[in-house]
Amino acid sequence: MALRAARYIGDQRIEVGNVEAKPPAAGEVTIRVAYNGICGTDLHIVQGHMDTRVALPAVIGHEMSGIISAIGPKVESLAPGQPVTVMPLRWCGECASCRAGHQHICQHLDFVGIDSPGALQEQWTVPASLVVPLPEGVSLEHAALVEPLAVAVHDVRRSRLAAGETVVVIGGGPIGQLIAIVARAAGAEVILAEPDADRRAFAAQCAIVVDPIEGDLAAVVDEHTGGAGADVVFEVAGTRGTALDATRHARTRGRVVFVAIHPEPVPVDLHRIFWRELEVLGARVYEREDFVRAIELLASGVVPADALITRIVPLDDTSEAFEALLAASAMKILVDVQGVRA
Amino acid sequence: MALRAARYIGDQRIEVGNVEAKPPAAGEVTIRVAYNGICGTDLHIVQGHMDTRVALPAVIGHEMSGIISAIGPKVESLAPGQPVTVMPLRWCGECASCRAGHQHICQHLDFVGIDSPGALQEQWTVPASLVVPLPEGVSLEHAALVEPLAVAVHDVRRSRLAAGETVVVIGGGPIGQLIAIVARAAGAEVILAEPDADRRAFAAQCAIVVDPIEGDLAAVVDEHTGGAGADVVFEVAGTRGTALDATRHARTRGRVVFVAIHPEPVPVDLHRIFWRELEVLGARVYEREDFVRAIELLASGVVPADALITRIVPLDDTSEAFEALLAASAMKILVDVQGVRA
Repeated sequence: MALRAARYIGDQRIEVGNVEAKPPAAGEVTIRVAYNGICGTDLHIVQGHMDTRVALPAVIGHEMSGIISAIGPKVESLAPGQPVTVMPLRWCGECASCRAGHQHICQHLDFVGIDSPGALQEQWTVPASLVVPLPEGVSLEHAALVEPLAVAVHDVRRSRLAAGETVVVIGGGPIGQLIAIVARAAGAEVILAEPDADRRAFAAQCAIVVDPIEGDLAAVVDEHTGGAGADVVFEVAGTRGTALDATRHARTRGRVVFVAIHPEPVPVDLHRIFWRELEVLGARVYEREDFVRAIELLASGVVPADALITRIVPLDDTSEAFEALLAASAMKILVDVQGVRA
Repeated sequence: MALRAARYIGDQRIEVGNVEAKPPAAGEVTIRVAYNGICGTDLHIVQGHMDTRVALPAVIGHEMSGIISAIGPKVESLAPGQPVTVMPLRWCGECASCRAGHQHICQHLDFVGIDSPGALQEQWTVPASLVVPLPEGVSLEHAALVEPLAVAVHDVRRSRLAAGETVVVIGGGPIGQLIAIVARAAGAEVILAEPDADRRAFAAQCAIVVDPIEGDLAAVVDEHTGGAGADVVFEVAGTRGTALDATRHARTRGRVVFVAIHPEPVPVDLHRIFWRELEVLGARVYEREDFVRAIELLASGVVPADALITRIVPLDDTSEAFEALLAASAMKILVDVQGVRA
């Protein structure tokens, strides 16, 4: 049986065409994919930045929701008809990271949707162990936000954020916004720095916003912390300037979480880290409990999910959606994977 | 009354001459200084690197031992004749760091011996609150090592090192050696990287040693950790290369402590910090409990104190001692502050 899928075929091109159906083997389930959100990593893939990692043609996509359509042998506790999302990590179980209990950053991690086929296809077959059931009250549209929200939950958990603390988020893209939302929900005061006015306006629902170009982030942090500095700083912008600046805003013994990916070494203010005895934390993807917490947050209504979804497009328009995201500061575009062009 | 003292007078020069005696005011004690160790920071001062911070002429010195010779009014629990050392930190008690309980990195810290007069004088008057009594069984020569040993104790404590863990120490100067000794005493396996053969030979008493130029540190770490990486890495060398390299040797969720001072921002491998979810910790000076622990370690005999003291010179030869330290890889030179040239 042939299924429609959007595939990255190289040369910065996405093509919608047919792929072969893959019936669920033992321990697997097949999901009729409903929605798939486009992630910054997907943009990198389609811009050709990850051609050495991605095997072409590649069905990408890893922020998804859907309904189980079939289960393979030996799958218990899941059934056709169930609404689900997928935590897209497969680990080896044997490396030093796995043995130490950090399977989510397995040294041989298969990030499903990057290293193996993803969710931009009508029917997606994955190991049952990756499937996370959705509760009533979380729509399939909103559930496509679980994966990026779990990233933010993980980042905030790594920071050991406590209620009443002050947080600086540098960068107001989708992950920065979600970190601000999660931190606010945890009882923190949030200051978000972002040069784009639309993104600042969005963040203003849950954060004090600062334009780091025209404004003075350090002065705002001082004002809100009595000169002490923030308890936690999240560097989500990923520029050389913000990597250097991030340590400046943390208080003595404060925590700085580097969320953005810096492919090359960049200058860091080690003197500030020494002087204030800062703690710098790396944070990568998520663990199962982060997925569970993300679903709880969506169900609770504290996440402005409708506002985060800028637009929903049919599968046929996947390529145009990528172009739109590269051209402008949309928050999240979902692909309606069963949808056809009107 | 005039006292003999060694003073930094600018132009990279030290002069031994007379200073005025300062009798102890209320809450102060005067110490007849026995020995004063020369620290890397003292070398920086005398090379002129800290001329904007140090008020000339400056009596420097902060690694010391001595006998209380007089006490001012309102000093209880200390008495003339007591052997002591000094924790050379004075804090404001009012800034955000102090209020948060981190007085040792007070935002207005007075590091005694840098920001105010130090121990390279026959009689030194300091607040009684800075004085740490010595137990029987710790000689005054060895007690001059308490301060640098407390630095190492603090660095190791910041790393949350547990018995059985594997540690990499990058740099085998005095602080690197002391960190290796403290980590070994805490039950860790220690790998120390140092290009100088004499320093490697010294470290071989408590560590596996590697020449990072001729040898392959990464291979040695892999061999001793089954490819996992070290639990803790201490960067004590302070070069651009070692700052970049330090993160490479830590396991998933490992800790990297930047001990060396990097005055300017240097490239750091943020991708590795992200990929392995590393924790980077700044560590600066020490707290009272680190001093207490350092004295315990000296009293226990696990620190090869005699071997660490390369030479003891009389106060008259302070300037020559600085020159010797700049010229060669001596470990620790003590100044016998009461001593005169033979």
